[in-house]
Amino acid sequence: MSSNSCPAAAAATFTTPPGAHPLPLDADAFRRQGRQVADFIADYYDRIEDYPVRPNVSPGFLAAQLPDAAPSWPEEPDALASALRDVRDLILPGLTHWQSPRHFAHFAATASNAGALGEFLAAGLNVNPFTWAASPAAAELEVVVTDWLGQALGLPEKLLFRGGSGGGGTLLGTSCEAMLCTIVAARDQKLLKIGEDRIGDLVVYCSDQTHFSFKKAARVAGIRRGNCRVIPTRFEDGFALSPAALAAAVRDDVARGKVPLFLCATVGTTATGAVDPVRELCAAVGAGHGSGVWVHVDAAYAGGACVCPEFRHVAAGAEEADSFSTNPHKWLLANMDCCALWIRRPGLLVAALGAGEDEDAILNKAPPAARGMQADLMVDYKDWQVPLSRRFRALKLWLVLRCHGVEGLRGVVRGHVRMAAAFEAMVRADPRFEVPVPPAFALVCFRLRPLAAHPGSSSGIDEVNGRLLEAVNGTGRAYMSGAVVGGAYVLRCAVGNSLTEDRHVREAWSVVQEQADAILAPSDDEDRCCTDQIQTEMELQRRPLGAAADVFA
Amino acid sequence: MSSNSCPAAAAATFTTPPGAHPLPLDADAFRRQGRQVADFIADYYDRIEDYPVRPNVSPGFLAAQLPDAAPSWPEEPDALASALRDVRDLILPGLTHWQSPRHFAHFAATASNAGALGEFLAAGLNVNPFTWAASPAAAELEVVVTDWLGQALGLPEKLLFRGGSGGGGTLLGTSCEAMLCTIVAARDQKLLKIGEDRIGDLVVYCSDQTHFSFKKAARVAGIRRGNCRVIPTRFEDGFALSPAALAAAVRDDVARGKVPLFLCATVGTTATGAVDPVRELCAAVGAGHGSGVWVHVDAAYAGGACVCPEFRHVAAGAEEADSFSTNPHKWLLANMDCCALWIRRPGLLVAALGAGEDEDAILNKAPPAARGMQADLMVDYKDWQVPLSRRFRALKLWLVLRCHGVEGLRGVVRGHVRMAAAFEAMVRADPRFEVPVPPAFALVCFRLRPLAAHPGSSSGIDEVNGRLLEAVNGTGRAYMSGAVVGGAYVLRCAVGNSLTEDRHVREAWSVVQEQADAILAPSDDEDRCCTDQIQTEMELQRRPLGAAADVFA
Repeated sequence: MSSNSCPAAAAATFTTPPGAHPLPLDADAFRRQGRQVADFIADYYDRIEDYPVRPNVSPGFLAAQLPDAAPSWPEEPDALASALRDVRDLILPGLTHWQSPRHFAHFAATASNAGALGEFLAAGLNVNPFTWAASPAAAELEVVVTDWLGQALGLPEKLLFRGGSGGGGTLLGTSCEAMLCTIVAARDQKLLKIGEDRIGDLVVYCSDQTHFSFKKAARVAGIRRGNCRVIPTRFEDGFALSPAALAAAVRDDVARGKVPLFLCATVGTTATGAVDPVRELCAAVGAGHGSGVWVHVDAAYAGGACVCPEFRHVAAGAEEADSFSTNPHKWLLANMDCCALWIRRPGLLVAALGAGEDEDAILNKAPPAARGMQADLMVDYKDWQVPLSRRFRALKLWLVLRCHGVEGLRGVVRGHVRMAAAFEAMVRADPRFEVPVPPAFALVCFRLRPLAAHPGSSSGIDEVNGRLLEAVNGTGRAYMSGAVVGGAYVLRCAVGNSLTEDRHVREAWSVVQEQADAILAPSDDEDRCCTDQIQTEMELQRRPLGAAADVFA
Repeated sequence: MSSNSCPAAAAATFTTPPGAHPLPLDADAFRRQGRQVADFIADYYDRIEDYPVRPNVSPGFLAAQLPDAAPSWPEEPDALASALRDVRDLILPGLTHWQSPRHFAHFAATASNAGALGEFLAAGLNVNPFTWAASPAAAELEVVVTDWLGQALGLPEKLLFRGGSGGGGTLLGTSCEAMLCTIVAARDQKLLKIGEDRIGDLVVYCSDQTHFSFKKAARVAGIRRGNCRVIPTRFEDGFALSPAALAAAVRDDVARGKVPLFLCATVGTTATGAVDPVRELCAAVGAGHGSGVWVHVDAAYAGGACVCPEFRHVAAGAEEADSFSTNPHKWLLANMDCCALWIRRPGLLVAALGAGEDEDAILNKAPPAARGMQADLMVDYKDWQVPLSRRFRALKLWLVLRCHGVEGLRGVVRGHVRMAAAFEAMVRADPRFEVPVPPAFALVCFRLRPLAAHPGSSSGIDEVNGRLLEAVNGTGRAYMSGAVVGGAYVLRCAVGNSLTEDRHVREAWSVVQEQADAILAPSDDEDRCCTDQIQTEMELQRRPLGAAADVFA
C-alpha cells in the first residue's frame, strides 16, 4: 500500500524555488489572462473568414511542429501569451472552422457569446454537481432550465418536472448518451420481467435514416448486433419511417420469440431532415399500452426548431413517447456540449444507472431524513447518466435563455430557415441542378442532374457529384457534406451558423456553380459527350445569380 | 415530411425588429462580455472563503426564486450583467464550493487559470473534432498531448502513440466512460470468439474498494448483475486487491463454465487511496498470455501523482495492462471534465465503437486514398468513445502543460502531499483520534477512537464519528467526507485544491477539534460515562495546535 510517509515522498521538495512558478489559481492573474483569452477569441471571430473553412494540411503537420515532450517549466515569462501565439500560428491554420459563416457541412454547432461565456463561467466555478448535495444550486438550476427549455419547445408536461406526473429532464453531452441511457433503462426494466438470460432476445428498431449513433448505443448496451432492425424508408414517404413497416417488423419478431424493446424515432434525420411520425409510430408499437416498447424521440437537430410554434407539429405525438432528446449545442446557441433529455419515468433511469447505499457515505449524499416534501427537487443527476462527475451545463443553457429569450432563439432558427429557402431557390433556378427531396428545416439536399453530367445516361452521376463536393470544399470558401439517400448521392447544405449572413449563402452557391462549370466543361482528357444542343439549352435556362438573389430581401 | 417551404415557415418573420435583439455571436460584444465574466470569476476566487463550503439551503430554494418560464426577451439592456448578478445573489449562495480552500471532501476537482481558460478557448473555437478531417489540428493535438501526459506520468511506451507498437491515448469526460469503453472493447473481442449468445457468461472482477462506477459501467455494457465479482480486501493488505484471491475467483468461474473477461485494478482507491498491485494482478489473470482477461488500471485520482518520480512505483506493472486511465481534472489542474485513457490495442476499441462505411460520406471522413503513411496520426476519435460529438479537450490539457510544465504539476502534487502529512501529524498528536489506515497520497482517513467517545466500549463509535462529520461540515468552515472501510466509519480529509494553503489545513483541524470537544463534552441529557481519570489523561496528552504546526515549515 502506498503511503505518503515513505521517505521519498516526505522528503520531496521543489527543485526550483516555488516563487518561480505561477500559482495555479490566481485571481489577479485571472483578470488579466481572462482578457487575453477573450480578446483572442474575439479576434478569431473578426478574422474567421480569412481562414479556408477546411484546412489544407497533411497528416502529421501539427505533431511535426510541436516538441516531443511537455516542457519541464514554462519557457517564457508570460506562458499564456506565448501559448496563444502557438494557437494562432499552429493550431488555427489546422482547424476545420465550425464557426465559419461558410461552414454548411453536417449540422452546425451553433455558437453564441452567451454559450461560450456560460462554459467559461462553469469552468471557473468548477463544481461537480453529481448529487443535489454536491452543489444544490447546480442541481436545481438543471431542474429549472430543462423545464424552461421543454416548455419553450412545446413538449408535453408528462416529460417535465412541472407536469407533476414524475417526468423530468437532464443535460448530457450528446444524443448518443441519451440513447444509451434510455436503452439501458428500458433494457433493465424488461429483463427484470423476462429474466437476465434473455438479453439476447431483445430487439431494437430504427430506420435506415436513423443516425448511426443509435446502432452504436444499442451495441454498447449489449443488444446483439443482429437484433437491430433497420427498417428501409422510401422516397415516396419522404424517407420517414413507416408505421406499417415498423408494426410488421415487430410482429415478425414476436412471432419468432424475440422481445421488442426500443424504438428510436427521429425528428429531423441527418441525411435529409426527414421526420418520423411519432404519434403513429407510438400507436404501431402500442407504446404506453403495456407492450413495453420504449419509444425515444431523437430530435438532436430539429428539436431546436420547435421553439417556433410553426414547427411544433413535427414533434406531435411526443406525449406518447417515453423520452425525447435534442441538442441545444446544435441549433440553440449552447456551445458544445449540451444534449437535453426528457424522460417520462426517470425512476427507470435511476433503477438502471443508480448505485446502492454503499456509495452514499463517501458522496455525502443527503440522508433520507432530509429528503422530505421537496424531495422531487433534490435530484441526484449522477443516477440519470453514465458518468459520476459532470459539468455545470445548466449554467450555460440558463445563460443562453436569459440573454436571448425564447424570441431570440426563434429569430435564430427562422433566420437560418429563411437563408436555406433562399439557397434552395437558387439551386432550383439552375437547370443543371435538382433538389431531389424537399428541404427540411434549414437543410437543403441538392445535386447535379444526370443530364448535366452525362447527357443521356445516369451512370457516373454520383461520382460526378462527389467530385463536385470535393471541388467545392477544396476552395476553402464553402464547406458542405454529402450523403447517399434512396441510392443517390446528394450534397448537403445545412445553414446554421451564428455568423452566417445572406451574402455567405449567395457566395456558397456561386462557389458551387463555379466548380460545376469546371467539372462539366469538356476537357481534352474527357469524352465530349455533351451535345451542343443540350449545352445551349442549359445555358439558356441558367439564370444569373441576381435572378434568385431577390429571395434574400 | 416537414418542409421549409410550408407557408407558416416561409412567412415567419421577426415579431420584433431584428435590431432589437443582440447578435448571438458578436466579436465586439465578446471583448466586453469576456472581461465581465473574467472579472466575475476572479471576484469569486477573491471572496471564495466568505462562503460556507457547503451551503445552508433547503430543497427548492432556487426554484422558488426563479421565474416559471424562460423570458420571451431579455428584460434588461445588459442581460449578461443582470444574469451575473443573479449568479452572485441566487446561485453562488447555493453552491457547494468545490474550489474553496476549505473543501477536503471527495477528491478535489483541482482547478487552474490555465484549465478554466482552456475550456473558455475551446468553447470559443467550438469545433467538433469527431474525426481527423472534422478538425485536423484538434485530433493531432490530442495525439500529441496524450503522449506528453503519458510520458510525464512514466507510462510504458506500449500505451503511447510514440511507442510505435500501436497504442495510444484519448481524452474522455470521466473514468466511468473509460471503463465502459474498455469493457465494451474487451466484451466484443471475446464474444467474437465464443459467440454473442454467451454474453451472460462473461464475468468482471474488482475489489470491494473499487469505485462503484465500475459496477455501473459493467451493467451498462450488459454484463449480468450477478457476474461482477467483488473480491473482499483486508486491513492487513492495506485494502489492496489480493492477487491470490483474484486468481481463486477466476479459477472458480472457469470451473463453473463462466468466462473471465475484465479486471479493474485501482491505483488510489476512493475510500483510502489503496493501491492494487498491478503487476501481480496481471500475472494472476495471465494478462497478455492468451487468457484474454482485459486488465484496466483505474488511476482516476492517484495517477496524477505519477508526475512525481517518487510515486511512479504505484503504477508498476502497467506495461502488462491493456488500458490505463487517470483524470487530469482531479489533480492535474485541468478543470472539469478531462479523463485521459491509454489503450494498448486501440483497434479493439474501434472494432467495438466504430461505425461502418455508410456514415463516412456525411462525416466527410477522409477517403482511404488520403490515409497514407501518416495514417497513424489521422485518428478518428469518435471511434474511441461512445458519443459522436466531442469538445476540444486537448486544447485545455495542452494549455495546462504549456503554462505549468511537468515541474509545475509536480509542485502542485507535492504541496498537497506535504499538507496532508501535516494534517496527519496533527491528528496523531491528539490522543482522542486515530489514523486507522496509512495515509496515501494526499488523503488522510481518521476517526475518534472508541475510547474517546465511549470509554470501555466500541459500540456507537461509528455513529459518533458520523455526528462529528456532520458537525464539521455544518460549520461551513471545512468540508470533509466519510467512508466505511473494514467495517469502520472514518472521516476523509483529501487535500487537493489549488487555493488550499497550510493555514486552511490547520484551521480545518481546529474545526474538527472544536466539534469533537462539543460532541464529547458530557451533557445533561447524556450518560456521563467518561471517568475523570480518562478525561484528565486525554487533556494531558492533547497537545496545543502549535506543537503540530511546525510540520508546516
